[in-house]
Amino acid sequence: MRTVNVDLGRATYPIDIGPGLLGDGGTLGRRVPGADLLVLSNETIAPLYLARVKAGLRDRRVGECILPDGERYKTLATASRVFDALVEQRFNRDATLIALGGGVVGDVGGFAAACYQRGIRFVQIPTTLLAQVDSSVGGKTGVNHPGGKNLIGAFHQPVAVVADTDCLGTLADRELRAGLAEVVKYGCSADAALFEWLERAVPRLIAREPAMLVEAIARSCEIKAAIVARDEREDGVRAILNFGHTFGHAIEAATGYERYLHGEAVAIGMAIAADLSARIGLVAGSVPQRLRALLSAAGLALEAPRFGAARARALIGMDKKVRGGTVRLVLLAGLGAAELRSDVGDDELTRTLEEHFG
Amino acid sequence: MRTVNVDLGRATYPIDIGPGLLGDGGTLGRRVPGADLLVLSNETIAPLYLARVKAGLRDRRVGECILPDGERYKTLATASRVFDALVEQRFNRDATLIALGGGVVGDVGGFAAACYQRGIRFVQIPTTLLAQVDSSVGGKTGVNHPGGKNLIGAFHQPVAVVADTDCLGTLADRELRAGLAEVVKYGCSADAALFEWLERAVPRLIAREPAMLVEAIARSCEIKAAIVARDEREDGVRAILNFGHTFGHAIEAATGYERYLHGEAVAIGMAIAADLSARIGLVAGSVPQRLRALLSAAGLALEAPRFGAARARALIGMDKKVRGGTVRLVLLAGLGAAELRSDVGDDELTRTLEEHFG
Repeated sequence: MRTVNVDLGRATYPIDIGPGLLGDGGTLGRRVPGADLLVLSNETIAPLYLARVKAGLRDRRVGECILPDGERYKTLATASRVFDALVEQRFNRDATLIALGGGVVGDVGGFAAACYQRGIRFVQIPTTLLAQVDSSVGGKTGVNHPGGKNLIGAFHQPVAVVADTDCLGTLADRELRAGLAEVVKYGCSADAALFEWLERAVPRLIAREPAMLVEAIARSCEIKAAIVARDEREDGVRAILNFGHTFGHAIEAATGYERYLHGEAVAIGMAIAADLSARIGLVAGSVPQRLRALLSAAGLALEAPRFGAARARALIGMDKKVRGGTVRLVLLAGLGAAELRSDVGDDELTRTLEEHFG
Repeated sequence: MRTVNVDLGRATYPIDIGPGLLGDGGTLGRRVPGADLLVLSNETIAPLYLARVKAGLRDRRVGECILPDGERYKTLATASRVFDALVEQRFNRDATLIALGGGVVGDVGGFAAACYQRGIRFVQIPTTLLAQVDSSVGGKTGVNHPGGKNLIGAFHQPVAVVADTDCLGTLADRELRAGLAEVVKYGCSADAALFEWLERAVPRLIAREPAMLVEAIARSCEIKAAIVARDEREDGVRAILNFGHTFGHAIEAATGYERYLHGEAVAIGMAIAADLSARIGLVAGSVPQRLRALLSAAGLALEAPRFGAARARALIGMDKKVRGGTVRLVLLAGLGAAELRSDVGDDELTRTLEEHFG
């Protein structure tokens, strides 16, 4: 087992990464505080792992709240169901909410924990690769609004993250690849050595070699933890974690959040952001080439949907990363060196959008 | 004008108290940051003060969201309406939400500001005495759940509070008296000198002498600010602000939150808590006598509704201030010296409940 600590002063917490963490004798029991626990999960994940989680939490009062599966349930109405469950079971401020599932369960659960009685403790048990390397770490929680993703939310740090790599055994290939896109993001935006390691390791990651998965997750979490520790509220450096996400969000929004998994859209978005970085001379043309080669080796398609440059521009304009009318984009100033830039020329942006979106 | 600063390090903010603060040339324009503003108010308050507020905010983009008036609209569904308004007007993270109204508007508005895009700035313009001395200060925001008051919420500090005492001119007598109950609470629980000042000043407060109101509000805010600065998240000393509230909440809950204004229920609750303090020997019998005399002089009735000791006990047991099964009560160890106690004997508690609730 590897443990990565997220150092946030008072809210510091550990991320345990490895096999066999959930059941009787695993680390879960030691990491979960409190006597009253509500496990939040969904109809896909609960049958697979809920019994194992409960076996690791004997002698506690364990309630359950099982949601339907899917991003379309990441709503305020679903958060309200979680509040109802907490109230019905008469949980008070000392209760702990445990989010067992992927990003939707973690984001809704974290938001509900942030708001119930103005904040109760919560523990993340991410069961997808994407959640293990990204959404379970850093304290960003929230739900979608018809007007946009994650428009309603809170910063609320977990007290622990327990990433059991055994859960990845049941993950669909497509989900695994989408998760790898975020691992590539860490390398490409913040750690050239990780990027180079991934160039060699990607076949063994696709083959789900346990030790390789632990390494990929641990290094991703170390990078995210270091950035979050410097910028908990996303006022500055944390923006580089959004590399590929401005274009990725546009792709997800234009396709109704159904055609692409988040990681798949981010992969395309990263390729576009890298192209734009080379176009304005920030990096050599070899950088987007290597990025595309790595993402392709991970099984990720890199063709953007052709919904038009004008629509893409509008969707970027609606993005949360816009301030005062200037488009701010996270671009590469080198391999492993993403930066937030607000000096992108309109012509270069237009040409890039036309090339990719038609 | 008086200004009280709430010192919370990074989140420090001023409370301005006095007449004429809202309109053109008042302090409001200087205190409100940002170019995009959403004013949240209700159907009673907006016709009275919205134009004045807008006159103080020329050259900004000012949107409006007007809610129906009443505690029964302090719900997640109402917060959702505020999110809709923010999204419809395409406000981003740099927007500022201004809550113009009493406690409901402030609590819902603060909660919406806490959650929209994981937190935007907000400014409180409290228009009732209760909101000016209590709910607008300290960052507790939230909405009710059918299972209990304020069960869903957040700690989110305003960037400024502008308490214009001109707004109290239209306040119903009953609302004024209920607000005075919270002023008495500050004196009784934390500042004997304020209590003694109130014993002399209460007729002039009831007569709404402007300078006296400013003094009462400023001293209340100073006390609350000092306590909040020591304990922003209500882990410790902030509990003493709940003096009278455990019994008060039980009274409100038992009567469906309709018969009593919050301050009226707190007044009865304080009288009961003071009686219990004397019964267990924490204070002399003269303390509850003086408290009752002051509250009566402020026009507050002190007879509890006779819904029975058993029901009162159950309602106390459901209160958020319960930890690990022990009833923790805020009692008086002296005039101006409230304490959180968990050593109240069951017999004394029962006798007190029977005496007051039948």
